[in-house]
Amino acid sequence: MTTPHTATASVEPLRQRLGSRFLTSAEALRDFSEDRSLAVAEGQPLGVVLAESADDVSVALAWANETKTPVSVRGGGSGLSGGAVSYPGGLVVSLEAMNRVLDIDVENRLADVEPGVVTSDLDERARKHGLFFAPDPSSVHLSTVGGNIATDAGGLRCIAHGTTAASVAALDVVLADGSIIHTGARTIKNATGLNMTPLFVGSEGTLGVITRATVRLKPVPEGTPRTFCASFDTVEAAGRAVTSIVSSNPRPEMLELIDAICARLIEEFEPSGLPQPEAALLLGQTVGPTAQRDAEILVAACERMGATVTRIQEGNDLLEARRIANGALMAGRYAVHCDVGVPVGNLVEMMRGVQAISEEAGRGVSILAHAGDGNLHPAVESDETPEDRAAAEKVVDRITELAISLGGVITGEHGIGSLKYRELPLQFDEPTLRAQRALKAALDPHGILTPGRGI
Amino acid sequence: MTTPHTATASVEPLRQRLGSRFLTSAEALRDFSEDRSLAVAEGQPLGVVLAESADDVSVALAWANETKTPVSVRGGGSGLSGGAVSYPGGLVVSLEAMNRVLDIDVENRLADVEPGVVTSDLDERARKHGLFFAPDPSSVHLSTVGGNIATDAGGLRCIAHGTTAASVAALDVVLADGSIIHTGARTIKNATGLNMTPLFVGSEGTLGVITRATVRLKPVPEGTPRTFCASFDTVEAAGRAVTSIVSSNPRPEMLELIDAICARLIEEFEPSGLPQPEAALLLGQTVGPTAQRDAEILVAACERMGATVTRIQEGNDLLEARRIANGALMAGRYAVHCDVGVPVGNLVEMMRGVQAISEEAGRGVSILAHAGDGNLHPAVESDETPEDRAAAEKVVDRITELAISLGGVITGEHGIGSLKYRELPLQFDEPTLRAQRALKAALDPHGILTPGRGI
Ligand SMILES: Cc1cc2nc3c(=O)[nH]c(=O)nc-3n(C[C@H](O)[C@H](O)[C@H](O)COP(=O)(O)OP(=O)(O)OC[C@H]3O[C@@H](n4cnc5c(N)ncnc54)[C@H](O)[C@@H]3O)c2cc1C
Ligand SMILES: Cc1cc2nc3c(=O)[nH]c(=O)nc-3n(C[C@H](O)[C@H](O)[C@H](O)COP(=O)(O)OP(=O)(O)OC[C@H]3O[C@@H](n4cnc5c(N)ncnc54)[C@H](O)[C@@H]3O)c2cc1C
Repeated sequence: MTTPHTATASVEPLRQRLGSRFLTSAEALRDFSEDRSLAVAEGQPLGVVLAESADDVSVALAWANETKTPVSVRGGGSGLSGGAVSYPGGLVVSLEAMNRVLDIDVENRLADVEPGVVTSDLDERARKHGLFFAPDPSSVHLSTVGGNIATDAGGLRCIAHGTTAASVAALDVVLADGSIIHTGARTIKNATGLNMTPLFVGSEGTLGVITRATVRLKPVPEGTPRTFCASFDTVEAAGRAVTSIVSSNPRPEMLELIDAICARLIEEFEPSGLPQPEAALLLGQTVGPTAQRDAEILVAACERMGATVTRIQEGNDLLEARRIANGALMAGRYAVHCDVGVPVGNLVEMMRGVQAISEEAGRGVSILAHAGDGNLHPAVESDETPEDRAAAEKVVDRITELAISLGGVITGEHGIGSLKYRELPLQFDEPTLRAQRALKAALDPHGILTPGRGI
Repeated sequence: MTTPHTATASVEPLRQRLGSRFLTSAEALRDFSEDRSLAVAEGQPLGVVLAESADDVSVALAWANETKTPVSVRGGGSGLSGGAVSYPGGLVVSLEAMNRVLDIDVENRLADVEPGVVTSDLDERARKHGLFFAPDPSSVHLSTVGGNIATDAGGLRCIAHGTTAASVAALDVVLADGSIIHTGARTIKNATGLNMTPLFVGSEGTLGVITRATVRLKPVPEGTPRTFCASFDTVEAAGRAVTSIVSSNPRPEMLELIDAICARLIEEFEPSGLPQPEAALLLGQTVGPTAQRDAEILVAACERMGATVTRIQEGNDLLEARRIANGALMAGRYAVHCDVGVPVGNLVEMMRGVQAISEEAGRGVSILAHAGDGNLHPAVESDETPEDRAAAEKVVDRITELAISLGGVITGEHGIGSLKYRELPLQFDEPTLRAQRALKAALDPHGILTPGRGI
């Protein structure tokens, strides 16, 4: 798919209809042009629509559709794949100002929100009613609920609560032609018509702009969580422990893996006495009234699988190590990251394969993984020179191909955006790609929405 | 959407390519023409393709697409909405003969199946490995896994395991032009491209023919389940008990509601000493190592909400009453059923409203509900004369409108098919319907697949 033509159209109609909600200052153009990835904006956009309503979004898209202007859609701008980066001569539609929690329906455990509400703000509001919002990407203080939905964001708790998809009941979406549609329902079951809600989840701004969401909340578990860790001498033993834990009860709320390199970097970055494993550390959490008993059962399972050092703690302290892992990797020059996924049963084979790729390339690779759902974030050693970065990217390519060969996926949670666009054919054959692009074209015939990215 | 033109095309190419898998005997045409609903086939189809492979389906659809012949797609034919009924001059594609379980991947808790495998056969196979297939419509011995996916079938356990959608990981689908696509992945998380799998789930044969599915299995809970019931004197008290139970822990595996009329008809149909409530009976089940304790907690909650008679039993016996409820309603002339859903918090208002409609119409309405997920099956009294049936259908219309006014849906689990097609505008506004039909047209430009139904 090519970027629509960008011969500058007159923005006068936007100025007239949107007034001060249409920004063109150099500052605004800069602030709304990039995300948190390495992708860079390749020229200035025409302007930024700081939408305050679905109608504002509708006006913006109808104009862009008419003038065939490419549109980048932007929540918190915390994305890691270049999805929200602006287009030269394009329009930016920002949902940042639509940040209200409209309603918390305690009885039905639903929240109605505007898309720009910051993820942690919604969660805080819900907790006042004994409820919580399950999606918890590490970016909760930066990301928006609309962005979480548009990327189907993951996080640490997916093993228990699924990705964001599992928390979305209904959406209002503005399509490319400016029409506003309503998907899903407030009920638990709904068999009417096509199931459009999950199609918009993870669509990365390519199908429409989400202007309102009804999301599901869950009751906050009673009691204090328990965090546990278990240190393994071999990748095989750690992998066996993961498969055994995820396929039996009790199920933990989280199950993360930190390899030896990463554990060392974390301890160097912020010393806390984190156990230093020979091969890998599993970090888990249990919640609810039986949290202590469940943690004991899981730690015993780890010991049966060969764990050497194990520990159970009340509260969240041990998790701190996981939360600072990205910073520690960056500080340690493990700077080029990826986001592949494999079936959990293939985790060990994947980790062994990554090790082999690392040795062959003569370049360190550290693995951090949402182990419980087979989502790995290998980080490749690299300095900041473009040459070295390119060489590290080659290692990432090999890791991605390995994941695919093990029945896996190119991206588990960060999305395709612009950075992984060229990799789509690795995962999809030609008829499948064609079908996806036909769906996109059905809703956005001129290809104005996030063109050349996502799908 | 109109039915494509049906000027009879030559079926010779089908005969040549498919040989004995292309059936045209009067018996075959009859046997593959209806489902379990009141919808009737309005004329003979041209023939039946008894597919044995995705290639057979591809040949059939490519031919139909070329000749613009309407196609009905058929699994077990147990549908209740007229979705699989044949078209006059149309082609029937049956998946009945593609009934193999191809693989059970115990480690990843996945099964690869052909679409025609009978639901209970898959479940039995999985149980040999300590796993089970969660979707459990009461038709498990008749329905196919492909049909369950195509209708997003519900059942009694959705409150714990969701509808069929929650159990589908990946699909092979033959599109209208005969191309074969692959959606989803074997991983738990997948953020690559558009999320097409859930779009096909519940699409009722309108978007493509599912020829293979990778479905998720779950570990069989330990121990014997406990079944409990609680009898309430008022609808309000029963409704409050439902909302209280679904919004706290422990969560039951099932939570069904049987109203006084239905409880009486069940006891008349097959006497078993089922408690006869003043207003409504709640029937629930708990599983796992804490089943007894959980049942006691839930029964205590019911008592706090005013339950008079309560009972806890080991095993499934009490559930028998729920399983024969449909037969009992039919035998008692409560013959016209519907399948609306409301947010659980609106269950009481819905039940009160149905009572008012029943009184106003001077016609009995009994309510059977998957109460835990707000899915109601009101059954309206009717004899077999067309006039009386039409009058009963009017009552169903009023019940449907009431559900919509309470934030609900036209169909919770049985789907739109042909029977509810005209009701779509009750739930969807014009732009939303248009968007859904644009998606359909993108994958099936000539509208050959299940035209005039579903969407
Ligand atoms: C420190 C850090 C930690 C992170 N940790 C995680 C993690 O654990 N798990 C994870 O999954 N991700 C993680 N991320 C990535 C990122 O935070 C998520 O992808 C997040 O969901 C993006 O939300 P956002 O509001 O910032 O979206 P943006 O970055 O603004 O946009 C992301 C994509 O969504 C689209 N979009 C945004 N809003 C809308 C809307 N209303 N309608 C339609 N399309 C829209 C954009 O066009 C773009 O394609 C992390 C990022 C950072 C910086
Ligand atoms: C006694 C009885 C009890 C029932 N209980 C329940 C219940 O508790 N919950 C519930 O949800 N439903 C219930 N049903 C309805 C029905 O069993 C379900 O809808 C079931 O999922 C249909 O499966 P099937 O294989 O029989 O599909 P069919 O009836 O053959 O087809 C149903 C629809 O799916 C489409 N379809 C079938 N196979 C495919 C395929 N491979 N690819 C694409 N489209 C396909 C058809 O075109 C049609 O639109 C019940 C029915 C009966 C008779």
